[in-house]
Amino acid sequence: MKLSLFFYVYQEHLLKYFYPVNYISITMENKKVIIVGGGFGGLLAAKEFKDTDFDATIIDKTNHHLFQPLLYQVAAAALSPADIAIPIRSVFRNQKNIKVLLDEVISVDKENNTIKLSNSELKFDHLILSPGARHSYFGNDTWEKYAPGLKTLSDALKIRELILNSLEAAEKELDLNQRKKYLTFVVIGGGPTGVELAGAIAEIAKKTMIRDYKNFCADDTIIVLVEALPRILTSYSPDLSDKAKEDLVKMGVDIQLNKKVTDVNENGVQLGDVFIESKNVIWAAGNVASPLLKTLNIDLDKAGRAIVESDCSVPGYSNIFVVGDAAIMKDDKGEVLPGVAPVAMQQGRFVGKLIKSGLDKSNRKKFTYVDKGSMATIGKAKAVAMISGLKLSGLIAWLAWSFVHIFFLIGFRNRFRVFAEWIWYYITNRQGTRLITNALKERK
Amino acid sequence: MKLSLFFYVYQEHLLKYFYPVNYISITMENKKVIIVGGGFGGLLAAKEFKDTDFDATIIDKTNHHLFQPLLYQVAAAALSPADIAIPIRSVFRNQKNIKVLLDEVISVDKENNTIKLSNSELKFDHLILSPGARHSYFGNDTWEKYAPGLKTLSDALKIRELILNSLEAAEKELDLNQRKKYLTFVVIGGGPTGVELAGAIAEIAKKTMIRDYKNFCADDTIIVLVEALPRILTSYSPDLSDKAKEDLVKMGVDIQLNKKVTDVNENGVQLGDVFIESKNVIWAAGNVASPLLKTLNIDLDKAGRAIVESDCSVPGYSNIFVVGDAAIMKDDKGEVLPGVAPVAMQQGRFVGKLIKSGLDKSNRKKFTYVDKGSMATIGKAKAVAMISGLKLSGLIAWLAWSFVHIFFLIGFRNRFRVFAEWIWYYITNRQGTRLITNALKERK
Repeated sequence: MKLSLFFYVYQEHLLKYFYPVNYISITMENKKVIIVGGGFGGLLAAKEFKDTDFDATIIDKTNHHLFQPLLYQVAAAALSPADIAIPIRSVFRNQKNIKVLLDEVISVDKENNTIKLSNSELKFDHLILSPGARHSYFGNDTWEKYAPGLKTLSDALKIRELILNSLEAAEKELDLNQRKKYLTFVVIGGGPTGVELAGAIAEIAKKTMIRDYKNFCADDTIIVLVEALPRILTSYSPDLSDKAKEDLVKMGVDIQLNKKVTDVNENGVQLGDVFIESKNVIWAAGNVASPLLKTLNIDLDKAGRAIVESDCSVPGYSNIFVVGDAAIMKDDKGEVLPGVAPVAMQQGRFVGKLIKSGLDKSNRKKFTYVDKGSMATIGKAKAVAMISGLKLSGLIAWLAWSFVHIFFLIGFRNRFRVFAEWIWYYITNRQGTRLITNALKERK
Repeated sequence: MKLSLFFYVYQEHLLKYFYPVNYISITMENKKVIIVGGGFGGLLAAKEFKDTDFDATIIDKTNHHLFQPLLYQVAAAALSPADIAIPIRSVFRNQKNIKVLLDEVISVDKENNTIKLSNSELKFDHLILSPGARHSYFGNDTWEKYAPGLKTLSDALKIRELILNSLEAAEKELDLNQRKKYLTFVVIGGGPTGVELAGAIAEIAKKTMIRDYKNFCADDTIIVLVEALPRILTSYSPDLSDKAKEDLVKMGVDIQLNKKVTDVNENGVQLGDVFIESKNVIWAAGNVASPLLKTLNIDLDKAGRAIVESDCSVPGYSNIFVVGDAAIMKDDKGEVLPGVAPVAMQQGRFVGKLIKSGLDKSNRKKFTYVDKGSMATIGKAKAVAMISGLKLSGLIAWLAWSFVHIFFLIGFRNRFRVFAEWIWYYITNRQGTRLITNALKERK
């Protein structure tokens, strides 16, 4: 055997002998998992790869995981951003095989197992898409400018400054007709986010912050909650909807049911024939999944969500998964799974385990959502909850809500801080973080 | 006596009889005090009018009083904005005679006792100007874009995001030459702010946050502190300067003395012949008083500060006062009072009491500054302090610093929160608020 042939035939063994470490990394290269989005779905999926041989990379446009269920409390100046967010990097600081990347994913090439980032490309063996949703204005994108939505920390701070600046403007405005628009708050959308926001704003404008102002009183403030359907909180039972409505009305919220928004502009909201003048319109009415999903070239539903198979994978591509708010899936009864944190968390965990198992498509179990209940808070000591068929309202629902939200908040310190904030707030009736961090800007 | 004459002569008594309340408010109208700026000077002055017959109005461009000595900790992601700021409105919520206005003062008309706001005018009997200072680039205003300064919460959040975004950019950049500029931090100015910032950045970049990143280590980060004079902390004694320098060097800070900045651009800083490539240049080198003072048409010093008389009043106008960083005053030894919080607080209190006393110019005492000491922190368990002639450094100075800063922080809850943050930080070595709240923006 000629020496060159010998080398050719035995090169693998020789390489292994001379470069044992490198060699292993070449031939036994770890499987690459890319996770897009550091929300509940992405974070729980990434955690599954702790202490494994997979090379996982979690990519997010922001540097933090956000505990979105409490985001409205940041908007309402009850909590600080740092109370409900944690750098994704910190969560995985001790995991060498889990990388974190602050970047935006532009598109997915499912044929070539590649994603395109702002300035680069990455290859994957498995891809988990958990990019979440943004608010949707049903085609009226010009409304966004006058009716901001609430999805990110930046959104929450914007809404907070909107509310605080309006109260300041009202304090300065001596013309009562001119003042009214600053003291009118309109929340569009009677789902959990809208209800929680309306309740929180009512507490601010009728009870807590109002005491700091000297030129107007609680009776001068108007809070309107607008819902297109005949009842609020349609994902709850009708009696809980009624209870929530009753509580909100008691807190001074004017609930407008069966009312469709036909226009939003810088002066307020048009509801059919009626125009509500307001400088504080907040949008909580609709969601549309991340535009990234369009680059998958698969069937999406009306809300832009990926129609996934029972294992959360994309039809025809058993290594690409979509979880959380960006996916649409039905349960055994044919009902669409709700866009809530527990669904995203369970799907993320499910897909992570599934990839680790290495099972091929035909041997995979289907995802089943275990509904542990849902809850929405309305105000201090007021909430509604459905927990394993049990309907709760009032103080007990609020305590359950507080307990669950503290419990699931990531990071010991955050839990402690939020708990301390709530105790303080409960005792003193004072909001804690009423800061306008942007320097004074002229109001239009 | 004709009836009309009777009315004329006795109108005062008649009016008093028929309109007793209104009447009093017409003839005994309360004196109007306007306070511009809700910093230490303005806040302490305003507090003097609690429960008095004066109508006080405090006007600020932001809605909060800021505990500026801890601002660098917000920039360094150790504290949240809400930990060191409190709405001015809350401070005076129970004082009917003290109004708070979120507005910008455009000019002062000292002949007509009037100030001009963005959209209105206000009359005053007494005016206290406490508008503070901004950073000065000594005529090179284009530098500001590349070397932000640190005076407001908004500044602090900008610097925080600059630092965090750079670390993220470094994590992504695989070209070591390209990466260096993201990992080089340059603080210009070796006064207390510069020293505290450099120390805080060294802790982040060499000890705490660095552990979250996987593609670079502490040795890859470079922190430079630039000072034009032969030593840092020139307001302290030379041996404390040396101690601070020693501590900073131990923490990994490269101190460049006798170096003048000749240019700042998007790629870094020019120090004479040497160019330091850096995406993280922070300005702590100079101050200039608020431009509002120019509208007073009085003598200002080079730094734009009002040259006030010994009672803090403006020459020729015994009812107009300037306090804090916006004023320049000398002590008995002819030394200029430093631009620190205690001077502003004592001046504010002094002027408040002086106005309440109603004394005319000739009977007024002069302001005397009681120096209770000064301190600067360098890092965990490292500080320098001069307290009544006593020079302290190391752990004991740091404990004194912590105690004083917690003690003077306004609001019980803030005190408690900052204390808890520091304990947590001390034990875990983790920074708490590393959030980039603005969505991903392309770095140049």
